[in-house]
Amino acid sequence: MAAEPAWIAVDWGTSNLRLWGLDPAGAVLFSGASDRGMGRLTRDGYPAALAAVLADRVAPDGPAIDVIVCGMAGARQGWMEAPYLPTPADLDDLAAKAVHPDPGATRLRARILPGLCQTGIGHEDVMRGEETQLLGLAALQPGFSGLVCMPGTHCKWARLDGRRVARFTSAMTGELFELLQLHSVLRHSLNGADDPVAREQGLDEGLAIGLTAPEQLMSRLFKVRAASLLSDRPPAWCAGFLSGLLVGSEVGGQRADLGHDEIPLIGGAALARIYARALAMIGVRSRHVDAADAVLAGLAAARKAGA
Amino acid sequence: MAAEPAWIAVDWGTSNLRLWGLDPAGAVLFSGASDRGMGRLTRDGYPAALAAVLADRVAPDGPAIDVIVCGMAGARQGWMEAPYLPTPADLDDLAAKAVHPDPGATRLRARILPGLCQTGIGHEDVMRGEETQLLGLAALQPGFSGLVCMPGTHCKWARLDGRRVARFTSAMTGELFELLQLHSVLRHSLNGADDPVAREQGLDEGLAIGLTAPEQLMSRLFKVRAASLLSDRPPAWCAGFLSGLLVGSEVGGQRADLGHDEIPLIGGAALARIYARALAMIGVRSRHVDAADAVLAGLAAARKAGA
Repeated sequence: MAAEPAWIAVDWGTSNLRLWGLDPAGAVLFSGASDRGMGRLTRDGYPAALAAVLADRVAPDGPAIDVIVCGMAGARQGWMEAPYLPTPADLDDLAAKAVHPDPGATRLRARILPGLCQTGIGHEDVMRGEETQLLGLAALQPGFSGLVCMPGTHCKWARLDGRRVARFTSAMTGELFELLQLHSVLRHSLNGADDPVAREQGLDEGLAIGLTAPEQLMSRLFKVRAASLLSDRPPAWCAGFLSGLLVGSEVGGQRADLGHDEIPLIGGAALARIYARALAMIGVRSRHVDAADAVLAGLAAARKAGA
Repeated sequence: MAAEPAWIAVDWGTSNLRLWGLDPAGAVLFSGASDRGMGRLTRDGYPAALAAVLADRVAPDGPAIDVIVCGMAGARQGWMEAPYLPTPADLDDLAAKAVHPDPGATRLRARILPGLCQTGIGHEDVMRGEETQLLGLAALQPGFSGLVCMPGTHCKWARLDGRRVARFTSAMTGELFELLQLHSVLRHSLNGADDPVAREQGLDEGLAIGLTAPEQLMSRLFKVRAASLLSDRPPAWCAGFLSGLLVGSEVGGQRADLGHDEIPLIGGAALARIYARALAMIGVRSRHVDAADAVLAGLAAARKAGA
């Protein structure tokens, strides 16, 4: 067995978990993943799910190793509830409010960071996992203040005021794309051979329409189907168009809040590229921050702060 | 067996068919229905599906009976394709362009009315069935011109200029509600005991938000989930809110086109009520026209015109 990690970083979501073993200097020694997300685990199953991913890397016995966890493992139906911090929220409180789900463990000493919530009628929102990416952003870019966009199944837009999350909102864009692709009448127009050129054309047309008329999303969605029936648009064009229409509507709908500062896009490269393009089309600059880099930096910052 | 019908009216959709037997004066003698919609039939299956619904009402032999059909039975993948008429379309052409799917039949002489299509990049749209309701509206309210709203799985908005359909657009509102209720993360907040008071409150709040900020639909949908997690909103409130948010966004997004005239709402009573409420909240009057009345009047008009 290779050198043991000084600590372990875990991003434990609804459908899977990702983890990294780090040396004392913060370098990644190994990474691992599993499909045993919160959705497939009962409370008692977490220690074994964690140990299974670490089996080849960490011997059963030895000195204590910190395991810093963020995400849905801290939900009420997860490993142990780490109650939400309400906005406006100080990112330094994430470490202070971490919970200890397995206090008797002598080898893998887990800590789970809380998520954030926002209350007030009409402003209710929640996040679990993205707050740790925001903490990571604050570590990677000290002094940053401004709007942050975190594309994903539920895209989060957060207003960061130094180390304080002033407010945030979630858009169901990614989930809606999946639902429409899998279950709606549009599926007949979306599934077929890929064609990168047609997909890019569809994407740009969808972005332009969504950005220009976000209030017409409901009456534009069906155009995907009609365009394939009447204008022979291939499935790749339709998939690009739908993606562009949804992201364009999301971005266009909050144009008034975007301002003129460069916006960090924390997420996977493919999705971040689409948001970057949408923002560029309305003159807003952005820069991509890899989601794994951000979550690792956030978990490291929380550990350093004593989580 | 009771008196035989002079003719039979059929609304043959994707998931089911409804039919009515009428006497020479146009009075309904009987009605019938079946779940053998286009989605469950091959081309050869239509005559038997029709005969099965009529088995107790129409003897196998006897003089010819006209069967006037509208809807998806005329789709390419239906009984026989009745090619779309392009907009602007004259409603009197529906009868003239009807197709004869079973020319050898001597007892049940079926005719299928065409649907409408609209071409032009970004304006593509299709309807099959609603055009017959528009023909029915023109018969029920001679001389009507103006915007018509037809709520349903895909809500159609059509601009009628006398007996001419100038243009139309489809909104996937009803389908989207079903998708979100069945398959999205919101389903956890939508399913539970009904509570009419809470549902009405949620509906009104959703309508108000959708009408005011239709461009923010993407970032409002998740509030359904967050409101149930954080503000103890019961499932009935959440379902009402989601319905209101979607319909409000649809109506609010085309506010500029609504004008000041009373708008006919052709559809089922429950859904028409929600659209009427949305329109009333922004000062637009509407009146309900029962969908079955409209389709029957349209099929009768087409028969009279020689379909």
